[in-house]
Amino acid sequence: MVKKTKYTTLLLSAILVFTISCNQPQNKTEAKATAIESIITDPLPSWNEGTSKQSIIDFVTNTTKEGSADFVPVADRIACFDNDGTLWTEKPLPFQLYFIIDRIKTLALQHPEWKSKQPFKGILEGDLKTAMAGGEKALVEIAMASHAGMTTDEFDKSVKDWMATATHPKTGKHYNEMVYQPMLELLDYLRTNGYKPFIVSGGGIDFMRVWVEEAYGIPPYQVIGSSNNAKYDTTLQPPALIKLAEFNFNDDKLAKPVGIHQHIGKRPVFTGGNSDGDYGMMLYTSTGTGPRFGLYVHHTDSLREYFYDREPGLARLNQGLDDAAKYNWVIVDMKKDWKKIYPYDEKE
Amino acid sequence: MVKKTKYTTLLLSAILVFTISCNQPQNKTEAKATAIESIITDPLPSWNEGTSKQSIIDFVTNTTKEGSADFVPVADRIACFDNDGTLWTEKPLPFQLYFIIDRIKTLALQHPEWKSKQPFKGILEGDLKTAMAGGEKALVEIAMASHAGMTTDEFDKSVKDWMATATHPKTGKHYNEMVYQPMLELLDYLRTNGYKPFIVSGGGIDFMRVWVEEAYGIPPYQVIGSSNNAKYDTTLQPPALIKLAEFNFNDDKLAKPVGIHQHIGKRPVFTGGNSDGDYGMMLYTSTGTGPRFGLYVHHTDSLREYFYDREPGLARLNQGLDDAAKYNWVIVDMKKDWKKIYPYDEKE
Repeated sequence: MVKKTKYTTLLLSAILVFTISCNQPQNKTEAKATAIESIITDPLPSWNEGTSKQSIIDFVTNTTKEGSADFVPVADRIACFDNDGTLWTEKPLPFQLYFIIDRIKTLALQHPEWKSKQPFKGILEGDLKTAMAGGEKALVEIAMASHAGMTTDEFDKSVKDWMATATHPKTGKHYNEMVYQPMLELLDYLRTNGYKPFIVSGGGIDFMRVWVEEAYGIPPYQVIGSSNNAKYDTTLQPPALIKLAEFNFNDDKLAKPVGIHQHIGKRPVFTGGNSDGDYGMMLYTSTGTGPRFGLYVHHTDSLREYFYDREPGLARLNQGLDDAAKYNWVIVDMKKDWKKIYPYDEKE
Repeated sequence: MVKKTKYTTLLLSAILVFTISCNQPQNKTEAKATAIESIITDPLPSWNEGTSKQSIIDFVTNTTKEGSADFVPVADRIACFDNDGTLWTEKPLPFQLYFIIDRIKTLALQHPEWKSKQPFKGILEGDLKTAMAGGEKALVEIAMASHAGMTTDEFDKSVKDWMATATHPKTGKHYNEMVYQPMLELLDYLRTNGYKPFIVSGGGIDFMRVWVEEAYGIPPYQVIGSSNNAKYDTTLQPPALIKLAEFNFNDDKLAKPVGIHQHIGKRPVFTGGNSDGDYGMMLYTSTGTGPRFGLYVHHTDSLREYFYDREPGLARLNQGLDDAAKYNWVIVDMKKDWKKIYPYDEKE
């Protein structure tokens, strides 16, 4: 008997170790083993105990427990997350805008005419207010100048180089360091439980894809974002994809459910956002039949990050707060719910 | 010593069994175990021995063997396949056209005016030639009438219902039974070796997503196709996605690399097609650096399927045959290379 127990223990250990080593649960045995793993360790260590954390854990537990009334098959475990303000910081300006500004400065060497032409002049002189006086038209002009007229490979390199060198005006950190540790844990927790996380962002799809795989473990084909048209130019040697100065898709507000439909083709079960720009995909998620989870990151921490919500402007969260109770959305209070904000923060 | 060997054997068996049970290789141990599994069984049993089969096996072996000069990391193992004529039959007409025709007949009950209006009149009277005399304009008209002005859920249901009932004019089989058995084996073989297969088709993305998961094991978020625009209508209760009668993307020819870029964000390593409509993505694949595999299904079997290649018209394969040697594309001869065409065929 003793011998048999030893065999069994060894076998079970081997099974457990090798099953857990699969990154994503692919079958029932793995799902069970990862469930065991989740019970013995805290899956969300940077989250303070409270209703936000508990409701996430309850939802994931209920939707992945076979026999549960809320069980969701692995194939349907689609999770969507906004990026700016949901997975990383977006203040004082969305980080992609800093990329645009820096890129305009670099490209100005090839464009001497920009020195006397707005909005470029303002950007080059550090006078953003004058540059942006032209409103949306000015923004589109600098966005296109920095995002079009080059191959996709050239653009990727420009983002990669920028990310490795540019730093945030307040923290001095590289932008891709300013991702939210509690959200990284949530992504991991969802993946461990068979959920497939997608990014659904108003940010540029090509801008994000360069760095999100390393930052969040989310591969490029699970990223949805705004985009320009592109052209496959076979007159070049070798042929190359050229980014054109034409809008293709603006992945914001009511277009987010459309982007989800076009790229994923399934309605999400779990969605996280932080502004009314995410309201459309939160609504699309929560009006589906069966169990659904909507999470709003509420920027309540002026000390460790930024405080903003209902005031008009970029990243406003107003309608989302008004309708949270109606749709059972969980409002995550960054100040109360999160032990730390960034991976580099000292643990409190 | 005997005891130790027993332990070791048991452990190894457990590891092997549980590793193989993961559907997709996620780590090195699994990749090795699946490689062992491939050696002991023929991964492509419906393929006759020959250069086509051997070159596929050599490529997959070389790109997945660690230490090989051609090794490709799992994250980059992207495989793209056309659908019509590559994964299922497309003759005498592309199957989606039969759906359109049948759908027009069903919808005619709500459109009495169609009885006297081309191209609808021709469709309803079984006179396809007159209906299609209006060329592309007529085709767009019937495509939009059958694919727009409804919710995405309603459209999905119309495809599902049609697929369950409609049958092919020659074989009498349901259309989703007319998938190529050797290609199903290739998809499985690639998946077993860590490749992620995507469909990249000129066919409708919403039309395909309804049935491809069951037919090919390819989930909806790995399907790229042509699409209309859609709108998220929040005035409906519950809010719903409405398919609009406006083109969004025509996923054919030089647009295929663009579709791949927009949806996947990585250049494929392995691509399969069957017509010059796939030439663009074959070129995009084969002009990448490092190991690349291009496969053209050549329709050479007039008895078991259809014979067609260089003659002008739909699904022409001309430029592809001309340039196959230049890009090392493998031309799969359906008559010689495939033991059987459809899963329901008797094995020869």
